[in-house]
Amino acid sequence: MNEYIEPYQRATLNVIEMMAFVKPLTAKPFIKKDKVARGDISGIISISGSKSGVMVISLSKGAICKIVGSMFGEEYTEINDEVKDAVGELTNMISGDARKILAEKGLTLEAGIPSIIVGKGHEISNLSNGQCLSIPFKVDAFPFVIEISFNKD
Amino acid sequence: MNEYIEPYQRATLNVIEMMAFVKPLTAKPFIKKDKVARGDISGIISISGSKSGVMVISLSKGAICKIVGSMFGEEYTEINDEVKDAVGELTNMISGDARKILAEKGLTLEAGIPSIIVGKGHEISNLSNGQCLSIPFKVDAFPFVIEISFNKD
Repeated sequence: MNEYIEPYQRATLNVIEMMAFVKPLTAKPFIKKDKVARGDISGIISISGSKSGVMVISLSKGAICKIVGSMFGEEYTEINDEVKDAVGELTNMISGDARKILAEKGLTLEAGIPSIIVGKGHEISNLSNGQCLSIPFKVDAFPFVIEISFNKD
Repeated sequence: MNEYIEPYQRATLNVIEMMAFVKPLTAKPFIKKDKVARGDISGIISISGSKSGVMVISLSKGAICKIVGSMFGEEYTEINDEVKDAVGELTNMISGDARKILAEKGLTLEAGIPSIIVGKGHEISNLSNGQCLSIPFKVDAFPFVIEISFNKD
């Protein structure tokens, strides 16, 4: 899975810096055992083409309120419809930017329709038969994570 | 969306009756305005091929404990790993059975990798640009729902 770390980490930084003028801190990506992402709001998008997989972005309430607040120049303290729409848009854009980077390496991927999940401390797992890569970030002290999992060939 | 009601409703009944020996009650399917499904545990699977879309199954804790309890002949009162695995399997099987019914009508669909969401009273919405069809069921008095949404052609 190491070849996916840089494209997805870079795509996340690109999109959030461009959309929200915020520079997230990165931490060391790792292979997860339990395939469970935790957050207060998440976006899920299916990946098909050269590989079948799923990309998830799971954010704490603090992280998404900071990002959306900076996008729109207003203070957000609750996960409302605007925040949900923004997570859908970020999911699409991060997935798209990563696919563009991977296309330069010869990997042609397509994306499905994003779903957005809202619920305090929900957990997302997936049924791929391959490993799950977790790429952690923080904005201020608030965590969020990008997770990628592909089926074995 | 009317042409999808019968295949997805029938597939759900087929799979749950076959796997769990339980016959869910049906209620009138409807087109949703808000595209939000609510539940305590959900499965999401992406649809591609002739149409791009998403299928979601969202269950109350009572409904899934009843279904899984009947599948395994034991009482379940909590959403544990076995319950999560069962929801992934049900998501795959219902989606697969509906695709088989739709294939007989000339519609070739493929499915992605299911994701499973756990969290009390979480909400799932999706970013398709088409309508969202909601197909409600109950086991005993406990509700669950299948939701389908496709992008416009």
